[in-house]
Amino acid sequence: MNCSLAQTLNIVGERWSLLIIRDASFGVCRFDDFQKSLGVARNMLSMRLKQLTLHGILEKTIEEGNRTEYHLTQKGWDLMPVLLAMTHWGDKHVPAEKGERVVFVDRDSGRPIEPMSIHDADGKRLGVHDIRARFPK
Amino acid sequence: MNCSLAQTLNIVGERWSLLIIRDASFGVCRFDDFQKSLGVARNMLSMRLKQLTLHGILEKTIEEGNRTEYHLTQKGWDLMPVLLAMTHWGDKHVPAEKGERVVFVDRDSGRPIEPMSIHDADGKRLGVHDIRARFPK
Repeated sequence: MNCSLAQTLNIVGERWSLLIIRDASFGVCRFDDFQKSLGVARNMLSMRLKQLTLHGILEKTIEEGNRTEYHLTQKGWDLMPVLLAMTHWGDKHVPAEKGERVVFVDRDSGRPIEPMSIHDADGKRLGVHDIRARFPK
Repeated sequence: MNCSLAQTLNIVGERWSLLIIRDASFGVCRFDDFQKSLGVARNMLSMRLKQLTLHGILEKTIEEGNRTEYHLTQKGWDLMPVLLAMTHWGDKHVPAEKGERVVFVDRDSGRPIEPMSIHDADGKRLGVHDIRARFPK
């Protein structure tokens, strides 16, 4: 399918992948720490880490004491808008039955960031019906 | 997992769901048209449409001639930032080997919208390292 969405879903369209990327953005970098945080089966985690490394989203490094670490590459960090958009949608539409959740804030001011929104080329905020898809001819 | 991302992934964290939502945003509303557009197995499509309706992302209506249609609700339209963020990431990071792709443009000016980005509460654009997660106490 010649569609960027489909292509992206081929790479990260699987629940564990995005949760691994979220944890990596929080500073998690070791296999056992991902495993503890996510409660995912070790063989599944191993497969996902391998796939994300293969796609250049994570970089695998060997640290002192022969310890393996996984860190987000720029391509991986570029997925933050996807994660944030999903997070904000969940904040709005899925009740937080277990109480307060993680909030993403501006590092300087400490204020919550704007919910992920659509903007025109000049940075003006647009509504969802202010845009249209232009299909290739 | 008390995390909005995980909650969202529980609902739309499956490749077909997001592709169905994309098609619905393009105006596709009938079962056969979704099927033709996506090339998905009919039982899988049926299952996904049912699930999306159950979650209030699609609304099922019965039209003249007893024809069933599926339309995005506001909750469904609110997923556009997720779709756009994935689309823009694919535009940037997955080569378009099959040529030009869909471009999302401002309906008024016809100009491509800004790639989905992070903004502070005042609308100022932030980099991915300008934000941090504030965890519940």
